[in-house]
Amino acid sequence: MKQATRQKLIETGARIMHHKGYNYTGIQEVLRAAAVPKGSFYFYFRNKEDFGMEVVDHYTARYKDRVTPLLDDKSMPPLKRIAAVLDMFIDLYAGTDFTLGCPIGNLSQEMGDLSPAFRSKLQQSVREMSTLYEQVLQEAKQTGDMQLLLDPGELADFILVGWQGALVRMKIEKSPKPLENHKNIVMKILEAALPYY
Amino acid sequence: MKQATRQKLIETGARIMHHKGYNYTGIQEVLRAAAVPKGSFYFYFRNKEDFGMEVVDHYTARYKDRVTPLLDDKSMPPLKRIAAVLDMFIDLYAGTDFTLGCPIGNLSQEMGDLSPAFRSKLQQSVREMSTLYEQVLQEAKQTGDMQLLLDPGELADFILVGWQGALVRMKIEKSPKPLENHKNIVMKILEAALPYY
Repeated sequence: MKQATRQKLIETGARIMHHKGYNYTGIQEVLRAAAVPKGSFYFYFRNKEDFGMEVVDHYTARYKDRVTPLLDDKSMPPLKRIAAVLDMFIDLYAGTDFTLGCPIGNLSQEMGDLSPAFRSKLQQSVREMSTLYEQVLQEAKQTGDMQLLLDPGELADFILVGWQGALVRMKIEKSPKPLENHKNIVMKILEAALPYY
Repeated sequence: MKQATRQKLIETGARIMHHKGYNYTGIQEVLRAAAVPKGSFYFYFRNKEDFGMEVVDHYTARYKDRVTPLLDDKSMPPLKRIAAVLDMFIDLYAGTDFTLGCPIGNLSQEMGDLSPAFRSKLQQSVREMSTLYEQVLQEAKQTGDMQLLLDPGELADFILVGWQGALVRMKIEKSPKPLENHKNIVMKILEAALPYY
């Protein structure tokens, strides 16, 4: 029961924070939306920042839940799994009219200069995300599906960082084009299919 | 005199908005920081959104002022000019301890879902930026400095979008590494120097 209420507050906070950011999200608003009595917040969390950290962990866990079934699907060659993840996200954002963007990118942008605790939690989050791709790229290197000799960790960061930029562009273009452009060029890089004359 | 006061308000607003974003920037705060009498704001601007649009134009103009001397420098081969721009920005952000990030990216993130007027102004801004790189890439294609056969416009967007993502990552890493990683891989792509076996 205690755990269920705590989890409900985190999920409600994650939804509101994705729309409004950290600073504009009020604790009272989260409690009201979760139908949890006022005053019980500090029973579950030390303070708002502590709550924010839990929300970041929630985003990271949800990201992994979405991504790992595709990245671990050995029925596909490794690079196709990366393409499948990017396509999955394009569909996901199409379903919300290309709004909101990446909650981790948004919080990085909002909190990166303001809170060392947030900063280190967000670093941990992007490293966990990046590692998922690094492992698949490592696998692709070993199987020979990828002939690119760049460091898989740096390559994973390059892909993810560019994707977060594409999600920012998406918010003003309100179209899948920035995501598709990033995916197309990244896949050509990975598949040694960039057209040179 | 009128023009000077107007310009001072825009520059002061640009500085504050870069730190705090659009929503947290108060008109009174801008007037106070610019030492302009209260009440005169509406003499210069219709409303806060109108003021915000002018600030975006200011960011775009300042960006061009920084970038075009390098991109137009015919003493360098075209691709080296792009590398020089990215190095210039790495130095710039090092000078502010890797804080703040790109004001246009920040506003895209903050305002993309909130204001159609902002969205279209920001679209215009990123297109103007992108065109600067597109022209250099077109030149590099013609001179043979670049053998990559991708569309220069899509390639310019890929580079800029990734750079904006790298600036978001920079804010949580507080290091030049995300920017350097993006630059290194982009330059290898452009110079046909990606290492494949």
